[in-house]
Amino acid sequence: MRRILTISRQFGSRGRTIGAMVAKELGIPLYDREIIRRTSETSGLEEEFVEERSEQGYGWFERIISSREMSFGSKSPEEYIWEKQCKVIIDLAKKGSCVFVGRCADWVLRGKEDILDAFIYAPIEYRAKTASELYDVGDLSEERVLKMVKEKDKRRAAYYKFFTDREFGDLKNYDVCLNSGVLGIENCAQVLIDLYKNKK
Amino acid sequence: MRRILTISRQFGSRGRTIGAMVAKELGIPLYDREIIRRTSETSGLEEEFVEERSEQGYGWFERIISSREMSFGSKSPEEYIWEKQCKVIIDLAKKGSCVFVGRCADWVLRGKEDILDAFIYAPIEYRAKTASELYDVGDLSEERVLKMVKEKDKRRAAYYKFFTDREFGDLKNYDVCLNSGVLGIENCAQVLIDLYKNKK
Repeated sequence: MRRILTISRQFGSRGRTIGAMVAKELGIPLYDREIIRRTSETSGLEEEFVEERSEQGYGWFERIISSREMSFGSKSPEEYIWEKQCKVIIDLAKKGSCVFVGRCADWVLRGKEDILDAFIYAPIEYRAKTASELYDVGDLSEERVLKMVKEKDKRRAAYYKFFTDREFGDLKNYDVCLNSGVLGIENCAQVLIDLYKNKK
Repeated sequence: MRRILTISRQFGSRGRTIGAMVAKELGIPLYDREIIRRTSETSGLEEEFVEERSEQGYGWFERIISSREMSFGSKSPEEYIWEKQCKVIIDLAKKGSCVFVGRCADWVLRGKEDILDAFIYAPIEYRAKTASELYDVGDLSEERVLKMVKEKDKRRAAYYKFFTDREFGDLKNYDVCLNSGVLGIENCAQVLIDLYKNKK
């Protein structure tokens, strides 16, 4: 059986960690940074550039709505990278069961495969704490980290909306939504493992 | 250990059935219509009247924003019933572990108890099908049933918003949200049973 799990997640909700736990337990690959690596390969663009112009990067939104400083045919770099990234995701999905974290894989693969779409979220205070622990935030104050998380939320939502015309975190896009800040990451991983195995 | 599970649900998502399955498996009481019965008792109002003036009823919203045809002190019947209903829920929660279905119990008990807040939702086509099967819709066309479900959604959301100042179905109000139309009610019940048992 080929089954795909997509995990969309709020910044700092530990969705990536949960995805890794699920993939390990199920013995199937996890695709996250791999998508960037392959998009870089197929587009001929540097990994750093691909990352900067996607979901994670600052500034993509400002650039995409401003005049185009570069173009790939009639496309902006962001659109060009988006198309390459979609192709990478579709090709990886064809190879067999796997877990995708982020990159709008839920939308890219909609209606295409036997899919379980999950969304991981958490209270903003939990996510700010995670961000402080997992990323280098230097000596930023708590208040500044909270602001950074809110900024990330806005950018991720805008990226998702721009390319998919859906609302990020609207539960109708997902089969299961889990509050990792309340449930804990072990419980979230276990629920996804069970649903992956048992969903008809 | 006393733990409360609240299940909020979209009309036709089978949240009530899922709640009954969970309560049975856990061996704890399910409160649903019981809340209406007790609210009727403590308010001295007929059960039919209590139901009509709450979440399930048609017309409560029109009445509450129109001139008050009755009053209980300075309150409209809806506000009077709401206060009695909150008290019933709080008192039932004090008695021990249980499952609440609907009645804004998630909001009424917020921060008060060891609580797991769940939301059950499903695609509207699934919910229209459920409505046709579970309720007497006479010979209504499919289109009319869909319209009825949308109407129910609007009223439930307005009721929730009016009394709690929250958005119905906004995932940040819940710990776990499950799409019963995709996952099936057995999987939804199992996830809630496991989380109820394992949540720290």
